[in-house]
Amino acid sequence: MIAQTPATPYYAVIFTSLRTEGDNGYNDMAVEMARLAAEQDGFLGVESARDELGITVSYWETLEAIKNWKANTRHLLAQQKGRAEWYTHYKVRICKVERDYEF
Amino acid sequence: MIAQTPATPYYAVIFTSLRTEGDNGYNDMAVEMARLAAEQDGFLGVESARDELGITVSYWETLEAIKNWKANTRHLLAQQKGRAEWYTHYKVRICKVERDYEF
Repeated sequence: MIAQTPATPYYAVIFTSLRTEGDNGYNDMAVEMARLAAEQDGFLGVESARDELGITVSYWETLEAIKNWKANTRHLLAQQKGRAEWYTHYKVRICKVERDYEF
Repeated sequence: MIAQTPATPYYAVIFTSLRTEGDNGYNDMAVEMARLAAEQDGFLGVESARDELGITVSYWETLEAIKNWKANTRHLLAQQKGRAEWYTHYKVRICKVERDYEF
């Protein structure tokens, strides 16, 4: 569940969100987006947790891979529905992972 | 709860972890570390969520601020106890946040 990422540098997208009440089709789309993201060129892994706040961090080889995923047709629909139905607020941060270590 | 961070660039530390069973003093220390981190020079904010996986992302002005926090005496003790008692596995990723946007 902790993503097995390659040697740095690589890229991370930190997606932090607050959900609306109720499911409204969210879980089905989340499963689809996780599957679809994993099929994209340059995808390296994903980590996700939610209690009050939701945090999903996806890891990518390049900024180009992140840009392509953002522009994916099915993902664009999910983003639109996210703003219309699923999230009251979210923030996306595009990062370069410069160093990592683990235990 | 979504951190109000300044204009990019700034830095993020993504801490992803898997916990051992039981509390073992973890929650008290987590509260103390959150309070102490917020007092450090260069601290910008923190976001945290846990279900099976725990993800805590802290935001900082500079790499120097991250280095100073890592070397904080009380935080060093927490890191040591983390490896001995609280975590089965964790990964730390030091990132430069290059771009962000929100809804």
